[in-house]
Amino acid sequence: MHAVEHVDHDSLARWGESCLRAVGCSDEDARTVAGALVQTSLWGIDSHGIARLPHYLARIRAGSIEPRPQYAVKRTGPGTAQFDGGHGLGVAAAFAAMALAQRLAREAGIGAVGLSESTHCGAIGLYTRQAARDGLVGIAFTHADSIVAPARGTRKFLGTNPISIAFPHAGGAPLCLDMATSSIPWNRVMNARRENHALPPDIALDEQGRPTQDAHAAAALVPLGGASYGHKGYALALMIDLLCGPLNGMAFADRITPMFGDLTQRRRLGGLMIALDPLRFAGGATLAQRVAEVVEAIRRQPGDVLYPGEPEERAEAQRRREGIPIEPGLRAEIDEWTRRLGVAPLR
Amino acid sequence: MHAVEHVDHDSLARWGESCLRAVGCSDEDARTVAGALVQTSLWGIDSHGIARLPHYLARIRAGSIEPRPQYAVKRTGPGTAQFDGGHGLGVAAAFAAMALAQRLAREAGIGAVGLSESTHCGAIGLYTRQAARDGLVGIAFTHADSIVAPARGTRKFLGTNPISIAFPHAGGAPLCLDMATSSIPWNRVMNARRENHALPPDIALDEQGRPTQDAHAAAALVPLGGASYGHKGYALALMIDLLCGPLNGMAFADRITPMFGDLTQRRRLGGLMIALDPLRFAGGATLAQRVAEVVEAIRRQPGDVLYPGEPEERAEAQRRREGIPIEPGLRAEIDEWTRRLGVAPLR
Repeated sequence: MHAVEHVDHDSLARWGESCLRAVGCSDEDARTVAGALVQTSLWGIDSHGIARLPHYLARIRAGSIEPRPQYAVKRTGPGTAQFDGGHGLGVAAAFAAMALAQRLAREAGIGAVGLSESTHCGAIGLYTRQAARDGLVGIAFTHADSIVAPARGTRKFLGTNPISIAFPHAGGAPLCLDMATSSIPWNRVMNARRENHALPPDIALDEQGRPTQDAHAAAALVPLGGASYGHKGYALALMIDLLCGPLNGMAFADRITPMFGDLTQRRRLGGLMIALDPLRFAGGATLAQRVAEVVEAIRRQPGDVLYPGEPEERAEAQRRREGIPIEPGLRAEIDEWTRRLGVAPLR
Repeated sequence: MHAVEHVDHDSLARWGESCLRAVGCSDEDARTVAGALVQTSLWGIDSHGIARLPHYLARIRAGSIEPRPQYAVKRTGPGTAQFDGGHGLGVAAAFAAMALAQRLAREAGIGAVGLSESTHCGAIGLYTRQAARDGLVGIAFTHADSIVAPARGTRKFLGTNPISIAFPHAGGAPLCLDMATSSIPWNRVMNARRENHALPPDIALDEQGRPTQDAHAAAALVPLGGASYGHKGYALALMIDLLCGPLNGMAFADRITPMFGDLTQRRRLGGLMIALDPLRFAGGATLAQRVAEVVEAIRRQPGDVLYPGEPEERAEAQRRREGIPIEPGLRAEIDEWTRRLGVAPLR
């Protein structure tokens, strides 16, 4: 009865696409965003996958995400541009911003596109992999509302502000780092609350700023590095916030509109997409082959060492066979949106 | 007798400069490099400060660092260039490479300069701060020979590969992140060996890949994030290695010539210097003021929260007053090089 279902990824993508069309998105955006969320679920990143679609639908219905945004793109230099996402779906805007960065990189050697007036853009590894599949090095940053306490602090201040870097990989999928700058995502705390599990040590603080393993008492996350080395995760999160917020004229830290607060309020999120043309550098012509050599060297390491992106590849292979797991809570949301929008039900 | 001396920073810089001139460096390089090492010591980063000068001198004498390098700079695009450091002092090459990235950023909006055929470049916060003092955002990466085990691995494979990001800060020194991607630098293990101290938990592995707190048994460092979340520090270190080594035609991971191995062997290190012109982005005109607001918000945080770069500013204020601490072992090396090169002794 509370069993986890497994759903074929194509069916899930079709269902997501029809929902996004039903709330007014263009066919192209609906396909892009539903496909990206399902791809993220295939990678095993459930915190940023199809489970986020109901939230996007709710924000479109509440008016804080525009289903047909007007992008405003301003080229500001041979290698730079500002991409105003017009409060549309952040996933679609981020793909377009990275595509522009890729075009700039082809022209100028490197391209940097600032994203502004946007919304939640999902897993940023989507965009760096797009660049890497195009033979470029992709680097992406985004920021989020506050849930992480600074090192030596007691109260949430920064988001889980991630960094992603992806490289072309001869004979394989791009090598891709995509990491939050906290030890775990807040989503993991939510899961532990639902299942009444304890949290691992050294990852959360309670309302008084004391370390806690009680998921229900957790009020903030600890930055990557924990109690002793969290100054590193904290400082990285802060610099990423500056690259995404203030650089693009958007807010920072605890001034960012909460994702799960008032759904009628604009998020106004920023991001930074960078693409770099390897052929402008001394090792560019052989880079993808060298990356394959690095992968071989990693395979020869003692222990069960993985390369960045390998856990996602493994999850994808399994989930393409067995389907994407859908928790009962998510299934209920899916059915509710199916009814509300009158779309074909997900089988 | 084994007391730590405190030496005035100006005297130390003059001494370092005279040593570098004595081994054949130009007046300008001698001043730049000695000044940078002393500045790093002022920041309290003793692992990358004046304590490294004897090593640079030894490598110049052994022939693996060129005192009068021939740089080869190739402009490869409006925003990119390759900077061949000609096996000269990495500190001087990195300053020059970042200066070029700054010039490209003024022209193209963003500049990326790949550094190749270079040597140890010290604390990379030197270069990002140079960009930030010029009103730009500075981003820098370098790599190092292997001492960090990959997550789930048992043997050293990657360097402590650092990342630095610096922002202009209205009314203050640049906000600057400069962090290794391991929890601690290897230097800290060396110190613990010398002083027979135990290591903190979760930062080192022994020859068999088991966690150890015995400094003498330590054979590898654990990446940032420790046993549970070290996949993040590991993946970040690996991507930085790719940006510095393979992208620039240089080696990666355990193929990099060791710093403290055969001193006649070229290091052939790479790096990547990026400068970004804030004025090409929506928030650029007010960025330095917004950074000052972020600093104010950090000061209002409960706890004793610091901004990135604040520990260095505090150390500098103290060390400008009290002098730079010189350990007896370093003092002996200083006196030895003074005799060997016939320079005026450090008082």
